[in-house]
Amino acid sequence: MATPLQDQLAAASPWDFSGLRALFVNCTLKPSPLASHTAALAEIPIGIMERNGMAVETVRAADLEIATGVQPDMTEHGAERDDWPALFERVLAADVLVLMTPIWLGERSSVCTRVIERLYGNGSLLNADDQSAYYGRVGGCLVTGNEDGAKHCAMGVLYSLQHLGYAIPPQADAAWMGEAGPGPSYADPGSGGPENDFTNRNASFMAWNLMHLARILRAAGGIPAWGNQRSEWDAGRHPAAADPEHG
Amino acid sequence: MATPLQDQLAAASPWDFSGLRALFVNCTLKPSPLASHTAALAEIPIGIMERNGMAVETVRAADLEIATGVQPDMTEHGAERDDWPALFERVLAADVLVLMTPIWLGERSSVCTRVIERLYGNGSLLNADDQSAYYGRVGGCLVTGNEDGAKHCAMGVLYSLQHLGYAIPPQADAAWMGEAGPGPSYADPGSGGPENDFTNRNASFMAWNLMHLARILRAAGGIPAWGNQRSEWDAGRHPAAADPEHG
Amino acid sequence: MATPLQDQLAAASPWDFSGLRALFVNCTLKPSPLASHTAALAEIPIGIMERNGMAVETVRAADLEIATGVQPDMTEHGAERDDWPALFERVLAADVLVLMTPIWLGERSSVCTRVIERLYGNGSLLNADDQSAYYGRVGGCLVTGNEDGAKHCAMGVLYSLQHLGYAIPPQADAAWMGEAGPGPSYADPGSGGPENDFTNRNASFMAWNLMHLARILRAAGGIPAWGNQRSEWDAGRHPAAADPEHG
Amino acid sequence: MATPLQDQLAAASPWDFSGLRALFVNCTLKPSPLASHTAALAEIPIGIMERNGMAVETVRAADLEIATGVQPDMTEHGAERDDWPALFERVLAADVLVLMTPIWLGERSSVCTRVIERLYGNGSLLNADDQSAYYGRVGGCLVTGNEDGAKHCAMGVLYSLQHLGYAIPPQADAAWMGEAGPGPSYADPGSGGPENDFTNRNASFMAWNLMHLARILRAAGGIPAWGNQRSEWDAGRHPAAADPEHG
Repeated sequence: MATPLQDQLAAASPWDFSGLRALFVNCTLKPSPLASHTAALAEIPIGIMERNGMAVETVRAADLEIATGVQPDMTEHGAERDDWPALFERVLAADVLVLMTPIWLGERSSVCTRVIERLYGNGSLLNADDQSAYYGRVGGCLVTGNEDGAKHCAMGVLYSLQHLGYAIPPQADAAWMGEAGPGPSYADPGSGGPENDFTNRNASFMAWNLMHLARILRAAGGIPAWGNQRSEWDAGRHPAAADPEHG
Repeated sequence: MATPLQDQLAAASPWDFSGLRALFVNCTLKPSPLASHTAALAEIPIGIMERNGMAVETVRAADLEIATGVQPDMTEHGAERDDWPALFERVLAADVLVLMTPIWLGERSSVCTRVIERLYGNGSLLNADDQSAYYGRVGGCLVTGNEDGAKHCAMGVLYSLQHLGYAIPPQADAAWMGEAGPGPSYADPGSGGPENDFTNRNASFMAWNLMHLARILRAAGGIPAWGNQRSEWDAGRHPAAADPEHG
Repeated sequence: MATPLQDQLAAASPWDFSGLRALFVNCTLKPSPLASHTAALAEIPIGIMERNGMAVETVRAADLEIATGVQPDMTEHGAERDDWPALFERVLAADVLVLMTPIWLGERSSVCTRVIERLYGNGSLLNADDQSAYYGRVGGCLVTGNEDGAKHCAMGVLYSLQHLGYAIPPQADAAWMGEAGPGPSYADPGSGGPENDFTNRNASFMAWNLMHLARILRAAGGIPAWGNQRSEWDAGRHPAAADPEHG
Repeated sequence: MATPLQDQLAAASPWDFSGLRALFVNCTLKPSPLASHTAALAEIPIGIMERNGMAVETVRAADLEIATGVQPDMTEHGAERDDWPALFERVLAADVLVLMTPIWLGERSSVCTRVIERLYGNGSLLNADDQSAYYGRVGGCLVTGNEDGAKHCAMGVLYSLQHLGYAIPPQADAAWMGEAGPGPSYADPGSGGPENDFTNRNASFMAWNLMHLARILRAAGGIPAWGNQRSEWDAGRHPAAADPEHG
């Protein structure tokens, strides 16, 4: 990792990122303690965020029993166990959400799609300002694979996040894949992944842009609750317009 | 259009959006003066932005001769004519860029892909802070089609925009499609499109979220130039670190 | 369903489809006995195939415990239970495989991706002719959703199937989605889905084209084992070339 | 290229592919005589097909003026020139159609999308058996790029082809991309592309599978016109059923 630069950037930073929280959800198919290549790549943005005072949590979705379905708590719909509601608390506690996925046949993992289905299942939850509960947060995406598919995976992941209410900063994804065909994965010896300047730069810029936009949105009090509130839309009028004192 | 609500929101707005500029690039396959369904849908966000003091420009890419290629000016590479450099000036003059596309066989139009190829062709241009020249701007997407494909189109469009340097606010896309199979398009009589509450809400929320994030980023002076500058990355150190006075 | 036409077609058919087997894998998120909209749509091709003497099996993947991973049998890799190996036997017994998926946020279900991951996990299995074990079979796709995403889902599903070794006949997918926004799903009263002529035609043509190509491939003895065998590729020569008698 | 194996396969082949025609449409953004990386990769399947007696034509779409739109002849709709109708004749003359595309920002080229739009614009043309005119043909896809996106491009291309009426044989796509980040393209010195065994194998298997399925379909007289004819569908009955002599 380009740590000297990152050390300098953190030491000299005029910005205060403390108090911001990030959650990295690793959607590898492999439960712990198996090694995850995407986890290895995530060390770059995690290291940058931690250097700058952010609290970073990581969870591996395959270690949990996230039930199949799109209801907020699937135990109320027949599932014996559902670790999603607890994970969702951690999602809501985070200003930054990064979904991490490997690639299989050019697509994100089934685990990643399941996490997105569950995020979607909580999509009707509103915040105190009557916006989607995800508003005011920022999202990113990390992908590793053997040979192909990172942009396609990131397209779907970032689309889902913005559709649900996350803001997406510039260059919010980073990835590594090797040359076409079978070959070493990111963390395998000789892959060239950890030395890939392009991947390292993207992972670093992604971290900073997530941090910058999260801080800016926090300073702004989130996305202003004006023009994007469901109740006002359903009522067909702005709340203030109903109040003659307000007029 | 839900104009009473939008009139109230604009009249009572505590936010100042004047000075912000938006560019809507309509990537229909049809040149003017043929009717464009996507243009009809765009009237919603355009109307909202104009009500709030923004300057809005619209261009129909099929009316121009945007050359094939990925160089900034294709007349330097054999093209007889290239209207892209002039359009690119308008892209750079805008705080908000909305790409509009119809759907053919589930995909965005060839005209839309061409515009994105040309945006990409200018991707190495940097701003005064040594960031991608697109930084500090926000992007959105509007789609109409007969029956299917809006999210797929939006995934690719929004991905491209964030990859190039645009920030994507929450719910930055809106679309209308009818039921599966042939049928009326958005602006055709009896389509139900202009009366579709879901589409109208999404197009309105999109407008407000683009406006909010554009204003917030302008107030913040753009995405801070820290951790995301190409020259510092290539040098392997933060500029300040080279200056002993700076320590 | 357009049963009079289908009755006539089956009665007068000069083709013999008996002996051919089809497997429909329903990748809804809902376990039995919850109603599945995609299952309702599948009645069209299933009815056509059965009318023509084919043996059709249907399985709902959410009723099984298909383990997470990409190994042929995940119980050998730590999973407590894995219903995939038994399901894979049924996949191999079928000449026709149709994957069925609902749409969530514009994407196929996590259950569908999981099934494809497991198909991929068996991808190195070869048949007696040293081709991928999936060769000689045909694949299709059925999708239902509220409003959008069928072609995108079908693109990924059909791509995976052909990549693994399935042949894809013309018009091998069918779908139904309603107008943009929330609304009734396929089997809900008043959806218009079961009356949708376009969807019904596509689902019927899909059935016939799967049947035709499966029959044709069976008659041809599969995809000829010439030019597409892994061992000959790895050896760098055609087996016959090693045999001087064959010269 | 693995020519010794291919020479042996062609020499010893028990199959007769003569009389079959293939059309490779190169959708690079670069007009002739600029070098095309995808054209370099296409030499593999073209060489195999020619060795086996097929007639192979190649066209570079960027050398033509294919008009924007979705009508069979855009000169009837205001275009000054349209080279599509002539190209469409060559499409219909070919048993095998291979679309070739470079990747830009993870997507197929605008030229490729334009070609597909025009194929779609002829989609209502029927053959003598009242099926889509594309029936009885087979389709494939070749992709090259710097680093990522081949499967995503192939998903869309192959989906479009099967949707229009082409049959897709197993493993009907081949691609080369390098490691993540900028780097040499396929035909650049030192790319490793021409030596990539995986890409070479896929391009070779693709060629053979296209040849096999095209030959099998020709021998079968195309996809049988039974259950997939538009007129019978619209009439709601099989033609034979109207004829009491036939009944």
